[in-house]
Parts: sequence; C-alpha cells; structure tokens
Amino acid sequence: MIKTTILRSKRPRLKDPVLVEGLPGVGHVGKLVAEHLVEELGAKKILEIYSPHFPPQVIVENDSTIRLVRNELYAYKSKKKHDLLILVGDHQSTTNEGHYELCSVFLDIAEEFKVKRIYALGGYGVGQLVETETVLGAANNLDIVRELKEYGVEFRANEPGGGIVGASGLLLGLGALRGVEAACLMGVTSGYLVDPKSAQAVLKVLCKILDIEVDMQALEERASEMEKIVAKLREMEEGKSPISSEEDLRYIG
Amino acid sequence: MIKTTILRSKRPRLKDPVLVEGLPGVGHVGKLVAEHLVEELGAKKILEIYSPHFPPQVIVENDSTIRLVRNELYAYKSKKKHDLLILVGDHQSTTNEGHYELCSVFLDIAEEFKVKRIYALGGYGVGQLVETETVLGAANNLDIVRELKEYGVEFRANEPGGGIVGASGLLLGLGALRGVEAACLMGVTSGYLVDPKSAQAVLKVLCKILDIEVDMQALEERASEMEKIVAKLREMEEGKSPISSEEDLRYIG
Amino acid sequence: MIKTTILRSKRPRLKDPVLVEGLPGVGHVGKLVAEHLVEELGAKKILEIYSPHFPPQVIVENDSTIRLVRNELYAYKSKKKHDLLILVGDHQSTTNEGHYELCSVFLDIAEEFKVKRIYALGGYGVGQLVETETVLGAANNLDIVRELKEYGVEFRANEPGGGIVGASGLLLGLGALRGVEAACLMGVTSGYLVDPKSAQAVLKVLCKILDIEVDMQALEERASEMEKIVAKLREMEEGKSPISSEEDLRYIG
Amino acid sequence: MIKTTILRSKRPRLKDPVLVEGLPGVGHVGKLVAEHLVEELGAKKILEIYSPHFPPQVIVENDSTIRLVRNELYAYKSKKKHDLLILVGDHQSTTNEGHYELCSVFLDIAEEFKVKRIYALGGYGVGQLVETETVLGAANNLDIVRELKEYGVEFRANEPGGGIVGASGLLLGLGALRGVEAACLMGVTSGYLVDPKSAQAVLKVLCKILDIEVDMQALEERASEMEKIVAKLREMEEGKSPISSEEDLRYIG
Repeated sequence: MIKTTILRSKRPRLKDPVLVEGLPGVGHVGKLVAEHLVEELGAKKILEIYSPHFPPQVIVENDSTIRLVRNELYAYKSKKKHDLLILVGDHQSTTNEGHYELCSVFLDIAEEFKVKRIYALGGYGVGQLVETETVLGAANNLDIVRELKEYGVEFRANEPGGGIVGASGLLLGLGALRGVEAACLMGVTSGYLVDPKSAQAVLKVLCKILDIEVDMQALEERASEMEKIVAKLREMEEGKSPISSEEDLRYIG
Repeated sequence: MIKTTILRSKRPRLKDPVLVEGLPGVGHVGKLVAEHLVEELGAKKILEIYSPHFPPQVIVENDSTIRLVRNELYAYKSKKKHDLLILVGDHQSTTNEGHYELCSVFLDIAEEFKVKRIYALGGYGVGQLVETETVLGAANNLDIVRELKEYGVEFRANEPGGGIVGASGLLLGLGALRGVEAACLMGVTSGYLVDPKSAQAVLKVLCKILDIEVDMQALEERASEMEKIVAKLREMEEGKSPISSEEDLRYIG
Repeated sequence: MIKTTILRSKRPRLKDPVLVEGLPGVGHVGKLVAEHLVEELGAKKILEIYSPHFPPQVIVENDSTIRLVRNELYAYKSKKKHDLLILVGDHQSTTNEGHYELCSVFLDIAEEFKVKRIYALGGYGVGQLVETETVLGAANNLDIVRELKEYGVEFRANEPGGGIVGASGLLLGLGALRGVEAACLMGVTSGYLVDPKSAQAVLKVLCKILDIEVDMQALEERASEMEKIVAKLREMEEGKSPISSEEDLRYIG
Repeated sequence: MIKTTILRSKRPRLKDPVLVEGLPGVGHVGKLVAEHLVEELGAKKILEIYSPHFPPQVIVENDSTIRLVRNELYAYKSKKKHDLLILVGDHQSTTNEGHYELCSVFLDIAEEFKVKRIYALGGYGVGQLVETETVLGAANNLDIVRELKEYGVEFRANEPGGGIVGASGLLLGLGALRGVEAACLMGVTSGYLVDPKSAQAVLKVLCKILDIEVDMQALEERASEMEKIVAKLREMEEGKSPISSEEDLRYIG
C-alpha cells in the first residue's frame, strides 16, 4: 500500500448525517469522546482508512493478533433529525502534507454522504491543571458560532492563539474551501494528561447539540480514576518528590 | 487539497506591475512592510494560495471563525508608473522542496501579470541590537544593483555571508533563471525581535524606489512600543535579571 | 535510480515456500538469525532490492570494493515440506512512507512465489539485561497464534505495548490486508546490545516450526563472546566506572 | 522549478573523458581539489544543475548579484589520453531520496559523454588532527583497486567502517549497477577543519593517475595558512583556553 486506501465494509444510507471527528490529540479529549460515542451508541463500522502517512506500525490486540494502525468511520442511525458518522483512529498523519491529504479524503467521504455539518473534537492545552469544565469553540462560519453559543460553547477572540493544528483544524479550514460547515469543540485541559473529565464536558455539550442521550458512566469512572492520579501527583509535588518530566505525565492514563 | 492551489477572486488589468513580497522571516521585517502597504494603500486581495507545504493549521479570527493558513496577493492601482502586486502570508513553506514549488507558483503569477520587477523584502539578522537604519540589498542582475544604490540601498560584497534563504532568496534565484528582474531589500535587524523600526527603514527606501507616499504612523507607533520593550530588556540585562532565551525574545511583538 | 528497484539473478521454482524476514532492528536479533540461516543452509541469493528509501550509502568490503546498501532475498530448497525464502539487508527504510512502499514490494514478491506464510523475526527490547530465553509472538490471525503456542512461543495480551514498528510490523499488517499469513517472532532482549543469545532462542523456535536442523555453533560463539562483554560491563557498573551512554552499549558487537 | 533541471551552455565533444567529482563534504577536501583543478586547468563550464533537493538558498556574489545554489560541470580538453569532466557545487542534496535522484542525473550525464571512469573525491574524517598525507581508496571493481595501489592510494579492508555516504558513495554504488567504473579517493583528515593539506595529497595522487600536471601553489598557500590556525588552536588547547566545540572548529577556513 503506497497510497491512502479506503476499505469499505458497509454502505449505509444515512439521513442528513453529522460527522463527529475524534482522532488522537491534546489530552486525547476528542478520541475519548468519539470512542465513547461509538461504544454507547453501538455505532457500526462502515470503513477503514489506511495510509503511508500513518506510522509504520501494527497494534497488538488482546488475543495477540495484530492490526495495522488506521482510522475508522462508524455510522449510527438515529431516531432524531440527524444520523451520525463518527471518525476515530489510532494516529493522525505523521507529516504535514499527509494531514492535507488525509483531511481531503475525510472531506471526500463527508461529501459522499452529504454530511450537513462536521464537529471536530479536541483538547485545548493551557499548560496547567484545569478545574472548570470549559468547552471552547471555533467554526468555519459565523452562523455556527452564534448557534453554538446557545449550547454553552465558549468563544474567545483569537483563541487558541496558536491556531488549531492537525485534522481538527484542517477539517474546518479545508471544509470552508469546499463549502462544508464545520465547528471545533475543544475541551480545556492541562495538555499533560489524558483527560476524561474534559472529555465529559465536551460530550455533554455535543449531546445537547445533537439532541441525543448517552450514558456517561464509563467516562465518569475514568475521570475519577484520573483524579486520584492527579491528587497523587499534587501530593508528590508538594512533598517535592520529583516528577521527572511532562513526558511521564502524558503517559499516564 | 493535495496540491498547491490558487483561489482567484479578482482578475484586474495592471499597468507594468511591480511585485512586492513580504512573507514572514527574520524580524518579520518584510511582513510588517508588506502588510503596512496593503493597509495604507487600500490594496485589494485578488487571490489566495493554499498549499500542503504550509503547516496543517487554521488561524482563529477575532469572531471565532477560522481560516486556513495561506498566502495572499493584493493589487493596488497606482497613478504613477507602476501598479503594485503585494504578496503577504501566514507562513512560508515548511519544507525545502515546498519552497521551490511555491516560488515557482509565485513566478508563474508574476509572469501572468507581466511583472516588471520583484522586490523581495526581508530582515538581515546580525545577532545584536541594531541602532542604525541600514537597508542591505542584493539583486539578480548588476544593473539593478547600480540603480538601487541611488536610493540609499547598501550593497556589501558577499553579504549576507550565509546567502539569502527561503522565498526572498528563491524569487531572485529562480527569477534569474526565468528572466524576471528581482531585488532583495533587507532591513538590518538583531534577528531576535520583531522589528518595526527596521521595517520603517525598508519602507522608506521602497517608497522612494516606487515613487509612492505612504503614511508611516502605524509602523512608528509599533516601533516606539518595541523600543520601550528593548529598553526594558536592556535594564534587565544590566540588572542581571535573566532573560531566559532567544526564543523568548523572538516571541515578543 | 529514483524508484525502488529489484535486480533478479535467479528465478527458482519453489515448493510452498515460507518467507523468513530478518532485517536490522532491536538487538539485531532478526538479522542475526536470518544471516545465520543463509550461511548454515547455504541458501542462494536470488534478488537484490535497492531503494532511495535506504540511506545514500555504500559499504566498503574486505577487498576495498564497495556495494550499495540493499536488501537481499535468498532461496533454500528444502527436502521438507516448505522451501525457504530469507530476506536480509543492511538497512530498513529511513522514512515512514518508505516502510510502506518497501513492505508492499516484499509482499509483491511473496505473492509472486505463492508464499504460504511469513515469519518476521525481531527483538523485543525490555530496557534491562535479560536472563531467560523468551520468544514473544504475534500474528495476523488467531489460528497462527494457537499453532505457534505449541512450539513454545509466548503470547501476551497487548504486548509489545508500543506495537510492532517497521518492516516486521508492516509485513503482518499489510499482509493481513492482502490475505498473506504472517507471524512475528520476537526475542526478548535488553535493546542495548546486539544479542546473539536472544537470536539463538528465536532460531531454536524457528527451526522447530520449520522442521529444519541448523548448526548453532557460530551463534553460540558470538553469544559467549557477548556474555564476556556483558560481564565486564556489569563489573564496571559495580565498580562505578561510568559507562558513558546506551549509545555506546548498542555499539558493541 | 519543481524538478531537477539541467541548463546546458556548451556541448563539447570529449575524448574518452574521466569525470572528477568534488562536491562539498568532510574537510571540503573533494571540493578544494576539484575547484583547484577547474581554476588551474582553465576548464570551461558546460552545464549547471539546479534542484529542489538543494537548500532554498541563493549565494551573494562579490558584486551583490546573487545566484541560486547549484552544481556545475566543467570540461577540460587535454592533450593526454583522457579529457576531463569536473563536477563541483555549492551543496549536496538535503534529503536521502534527493541524493539518489541527483546521482542518477550525474550518471546520466556521465553515460551521455561516454565517461570511462569516475573519480569521486572526498575526505575521510578520523576525529583527530592528522600529520601524514594518506589517501584512502575504494572502488566499484577489484581491477581498479589493484590499479590504484600502483599510484600510492592506500586500501584498508572495510574502511571507512561507516561506509561512504552521499554523492561520492552513490556514484560508486549506483555506477556499479549501471556498469560505470568508479573509484573514491579520500584524503585522511581530522574532519574538524577545512583541510587544504589533505586536498594537496589527494590532488597529487589524482594528477599521477590522470597523467596531468597542475600548479599546487594556491593550495599550498591555503594549507600553510591553515597550519598557522591549527598551531594556534594547539597552543590554546595546551594553555587550556577552551575551544568551545567542534562546531566552531569546523567553521574555520
């Protein structure tokens, strides 16, 4: 496989679908939300995306079989207004140019399914432990900004100051050039830890927007586990036990 | 979008146009001058350039809408001899090969508009705070060197010693191979700070060359703000307050 | 040569061949095993693979002639059930995309010879000196996992936790997408040293699986040499003689 | 320019030409020799090679005009057996794949001119200041090794141990695959300094091999200047004046 390749297993007919993207990123916030949605809604996998822009790597499963790293698209037939497409995966592109190529592929698929709107989920790393449950937003047109304010999404001028990097950013940016509506929902997070609490905040807002109900328990459990770890880290810090590096912190979870 | 793409909004007829390039670089000198020109002359945007050689990034605007990073070309219809094309942007290419590709695209556009000459603007970082307002020049033929000396541009043998890197350099170098006249005007600057004062020096020379008048106030204000910051930095240095790194200095502005 | 190129010297007819891959990697375990097999079985070289994804480098031989870095495929006609193809080489790809391309080429060749199964050999670096002779396995379908357990290959859920990276991983992962059976046999090793002892462990298991007999003496000798070095390193450590870096340790052997 | 491009100015007929390559590398030994040859023989430039694999950079000349970084081929019509082609340049490829592409272009040109043999010149960095004038050799067939021993070229088994990297290595390696005879002549040098003395040693051997005479004075002068610098460095070292880093040493010359 020398080119990005789509393997299709199902070709569902979907009703005015909304695409939710939750690829790995800051605090794994988007990934946690999207994988939780797939799990709780019982969404069905409809295609897999393989690409030389992903790392040359396989993942070893529970039963010692392997699978090539990939992105996956799941479909959920809703009784509400919009069916859902959910994009999850092991990795984002390892190169700049690969990001452009892969997001073009994602948008081709979105157009094929006549996706009405994309929600790109992610984390917004602020460099310190975060108490509040803020979901920061950005969108590729002003109407969406206005609309999402109604759901409690916070919008701050020019924030994130460093822009939005990777798949979430490009889905909005390339989407705009192709006339596809897209918004980014970013859970504010430290950026040091996998953050299921921030993921909960994003999920709550997303459920309101999509008018769906999803059991939160699994995320709540992960969040309370993580809080214990954070409490321990804080003790260590106060007791001056050295925490070697951010890298170690990122590892936890 | 997998290839560099030009989105055109206007197709103006221009009179013997001169192309001014001011993409981000050392001290953001070129960018400051070119953006100031666009602003003060009220130049009109005629096209946008998107490319997978730019970072996979969107910029969040004031109103929380985003736009994909890009380069932009503005046109200004002058009453003088030459109309102007002004090239500005968020980023230069992130790869060597991308620099060659993008500058080829810039030159294609220049040839399309029958551009008579290119002025590539930039900074020349000398590694220490600079008092004087020197504009160093280089050009892709000797007649231009002679001509620009008349306008106070300084030419020093083999300087910059490290050559000219990036879009400014390639516009001259690739331009020479295609028979397009081009000169580089480099404001001497520390290289550590965004330098609106050096930008002023370049702008003054450029206005003389182009026989145009441009209000300098906005740049002057930024320059005097920056001087206050520099003064503070000097105090800190004398008081031995540590300034952590060049990286931090670059950040200011 | 701008593309990956195959130079063929022989076109043997092979009986239900099995492909053994032993390219350089952790502890050079796979490479040691595969090169030992080629040597002891007197396998014949049938093709060479050159690629711009390898380093731009030639190797100087004993007689001061050079050869371009490459991968090589050897064939061995067995009296048992399966003939063997053995893939060895100086380097793996230097880029991610190159890994995908080269493994696609390897699989093209495997399909051409109607390879029944691939055994990708490697080391599993655990970060500390290892006493036991464990061979960890992973495979691209569950039947192979069950089958290899019979030969003493150890399977641990989700291990290696970081997945399998490079040619060994991709042969399994891309193999699965093309319906080619493949297993990875990983000698557990420190990851710091070339490890002929771990290579012996892998070789023993592989010989049982393939139902072949191979003289182990050369590997045993290298292993006992290496044990002397390790003993010395341990003494130095205890005597607090500093061992400068892992890099140095990797070098030995 | 998006592809490697050859600009031809002359198309000479050459008699059984030998190609001498002296691109920048360790100690700039090859470059010093090749540029000295061009100068002293009055060789004529016949073509220029531009490539996106070179840095995106122009060089500023004495008269403040610029030129794009490039490689150049010079021709010298000899009264002896072989005319000469001399390959010099500002840079080698900045990427691995570019090295393969550019050396393929060099070999295309060599085949076009029916080049009988290539001498790739370079330095062999041994990591310490060198007193003797050794020229180490390697070749892409054994007959050349035997032949060059007659001229005092030293051949050591498996040396350089790290192989030969870059254009010199690939000219031999890719040359072998295309049936083009090629040898590498490496002046032993510290690797820290531009080394005109080592260049002299290589030039002497090369002149004997090619049966030509070349005035050495310019190189001798540079060598004696460099010796003064080295003497100073040694004094500093003995007086414990710190020489900050290898990087600084490399800079000199």
